[in-house]
Amino acid sequence: MEIRILREEILNPLQKVQPLIEKRSTMPILSHVLLDAKENSLDIFATDLLLAFKGTCKPIISQPGKIVVHAKALYEIIRNLNCEEIYLRENENQWLEIKGGNSFFSLASLPVEEFPSFPEIGHFNLVFISGELLNKAITKTYFSMAKEELDTHLAGLCCEKIDKKLRFVSTDRFRLTYMEIPFEDIEILQFEKNIMIPKKAVLEILRLNPRETLEIGFDNSAGVIKIPPSPAVSAPARPAGGDRQAGENGDLLYIRLMENRFPQYQHIIPEKNEYEAKIPKAPLKDILRRMNILVDEKNKVADFLFTKDKLTLFLDNPEMGKAQETLEIEVVPGRNLTKEMKFIFNISYLLDILNVLDSEIFIFGLNTAEKTPCVITGENDPGFKAFIVPIMEKKEDE
Amino acid sequence: MEIRILREEILNPLQKVQPLIEKRSTMPILSHVLLDAKENSLDIFATDLLLAFKGTCKPIISQPGKIVVHAKALYEIIRNLNCEEIYLRENENQWLEIKGGNSFFSLASLPVEEFPSFPEIGHFNLVFISGELLNKAITKTYFSMAKEELDTHLAGLCCEKIDKKLRFVSTDRFRLTYMEIPFEDIEILQFEKNIMIPKKAVLEILRLNPRETLEIGFDNSAGVIKIPPSPAVSAPARPAGGDRQAGENGDLLYIRLMENRFPQYQHIIPEKNEYEAKIPKAPLKDILRRMNILVDEKNKVADFLFTKDKLTLFLDNPEMGKAQETLEIEVVPGRNLTKEMKFIFNISYLLDILNVLDSEIFIFGLNTAEKTPCVITGENDPGFKAFIVPIMEKKEDE
Repeated sequence: MEIRILREEILNPLQKVQPLIEKRSTMPILSHVLLDAKENSLDIFATDLLLAFKGTCKPIISQPGKIVVHAKALYEIIRNLNCEEIYLRENENQWLEIKGGNSFFSLASLPVEEFPSFPEIGHFNLVFISGELLNKAITKTYFSMAKEELDTHLAGLCCEKIDKKLRFVSTDRFRLTYMEIPFEDIEILQFEKNIMIPKKAVLEILRLNPRETLEIGFDNSAGVIKIPPSPAVSAPARPAGGDRQAGENGDLLYIRLMENRFPQYQHIIPEKNEYEAKIPKAPLKDILRRMNILVDEKNKVADFLFTKDKLTLFLDNPEMGKAQETLEIEVVPGRNLTKEMKFIFNISYLLDILNVLDSEIFIFGLNTAEKTPCVITGENDPGFKAFIVPIMEKKEDE
Repeated sequence: MEIRILREEILNPLQKVQPLIEKRSTMPILSHVLLDAKENSLDIFATDLLLAFKGTCKPIISQPGKIVVHAKALYEIIRNLNCEEIYLRENENQWLEIKGGNSFFSLASLPVEEFPSFPEIGHFNLVFISGELLNKAITKTYFSMAKEELDTHLAGLCCEKIDKKLRFVSTDRFRLTYMEIPFEDIEILQFEKNIMIPKKAVLEILRLNPRETLEIGFDNSAGVIKIPPSPAVSAPARPAGGDRQAGENGDLLYIRLMENRFPQYQHIIPEKNEYEAKIPKAPLKDILRRMNILVDEKNKVADFLFTKDKLTLFLDNPEMGKAQETLEIEVVPGRNLTKEMKFIFNISYLLDILNVLDSEIFIFGLNTAEKTPCVITGENDPGFKAFIVPIMEKKEDE
């Protein structure tokens, strides 16, 4: 194996694989990358066994071969070299030699055959999806995924087929958020009704922060996301829409899906809200942020007192302090608040939702029936709904 | 106690005391601040028992009184209020009420008499010192202080009187750095030869990042640093030089000194270097940063091979990899390298020194006599010297 390559060109995929690299794994090979040099391309593989990533870059000259070296060392050495071109070569001791400028490094290697094999992706039907839209759907829903240590089966994002739409849903049992995005070629995706993408994969997609058109393919147990080459080295932009042809280049993220299914949740969604209030987002966020200061492990909630045109919040943490804040709100015609209504919400749960809203004014749907959540929507957040269950008041307050 | 004050004005001292606040102390009062309102000023006290800080600000209206409240809660509430003016008042339950805009908070308090008393500073003779110069002296020497867990008695910065100079020295036994700054009024400082400023205080001074003229006073067991009011609210700038008059305003840092003295070190300083090489700093830093990637717990050193006009570095970590780098160097007339010379240095120790050098070209004084350190100096680093002990070569290499 022998390669001449631009430093910037190889740095890009090497950087992308770093977060996947297990730092304290009991399997040393998981802290390594597999370099697979072909005639015209260099593929760089990394995996943590749940996720796998393949980054592709273009060498100037390449003599095919494979080698497995320490991921962070290779990345850091190349990142810190002050030269345009890098020369890589496997030497007679099976070490990887790295030359650039006046620097000469060599890195120990591990046997290629011990590197976990990269899953076959040939059986996936790939379909185009807007990276920006996917990113948005995930950004607006990932925060209500459950914590792995609390509810393992909810520590992921559900992706659900609904007519010509994909709905991304998550819940930790106290709140539920979903976002729907239009998706014409829904039948091309090879799963039945819904799949669960594990939390780690969700965060990885967010980190890749896709902006361009992607190709995705999912069946009931796994999925792939194909990311087009970065603009610096890419071919002309791909067409959006349902073209099934999958390009050969670009990075590839392989995801092993969760085995359990997302719980039935449709029955908790109220058809219509009893009352609705129009609330300005920014001042309420400020209020909640301030109140959040007085929150501790035992006291996380505030009282929300709604009247016709005013929302008053109270917090009382006997060990820390008290807070009272007021905010002007607007009535929604036909869903007027006809009486004073009191709810108790977890402050940070509500803050999380407001933090992903794009609307400056949002609609707070208030429902008093037992086990019926309150609903947050906004004009500038099409497809998005957040549900939050108010906390039942203690008996002595009634 | 009742106070009306500009939000910005009270925020400034509240922010400065935060790093001193013990987050997990067994003494809850150490996570609190003492507010001491006087007719025309509001003093804010915090302490971790080793250091104490007094910040002063100017209220619009003040009715004297004292109260002790949670430092972080008070800071965060005021920081997050969207208003220009803050109203503070101790209510009938001895809680602190905080009003601003439409917000109303109250914070629990602790008994004022339980707050650790602030040391008397009346007996210190204060003397002016350039904050910038003090900052520089500390920045260039603090990194070679020992780790507390390894050498408690060296985990601090020595401040030593030398003629009309103050010399700041630190060592962890493997390297020693010092920087001298001119100091006319040396007799005003009430300590004999030298004092040891504890690491935590050194880092605190760095964090305060003084730029203006300060007043300092030290005796053999404690010291104070008086920082002038920040420009936004300050009187005209103070004169530099040895004026002994101490102003009433400004922030105050009180430091309890270490009880042990700095070890004798003068004998290790070579009078004259055997050989000297002129080395460009930036490329050597790059080389060391790259080599540092292959360093681990067991292998932290590189070979430095000096010849007349070239420095070649070798690193061999059998578990990670190898590196070889070369760099052109210049001879120093009269101190020529007449033969090939090899030294072994700890890579990150050398990097630490290069990181604080202002000179682009530095002089590396090379000494082969046993227990004699090599010396780093630079034209643009007046008063600064760094000493690094080369590692003895293992027998089998000889």
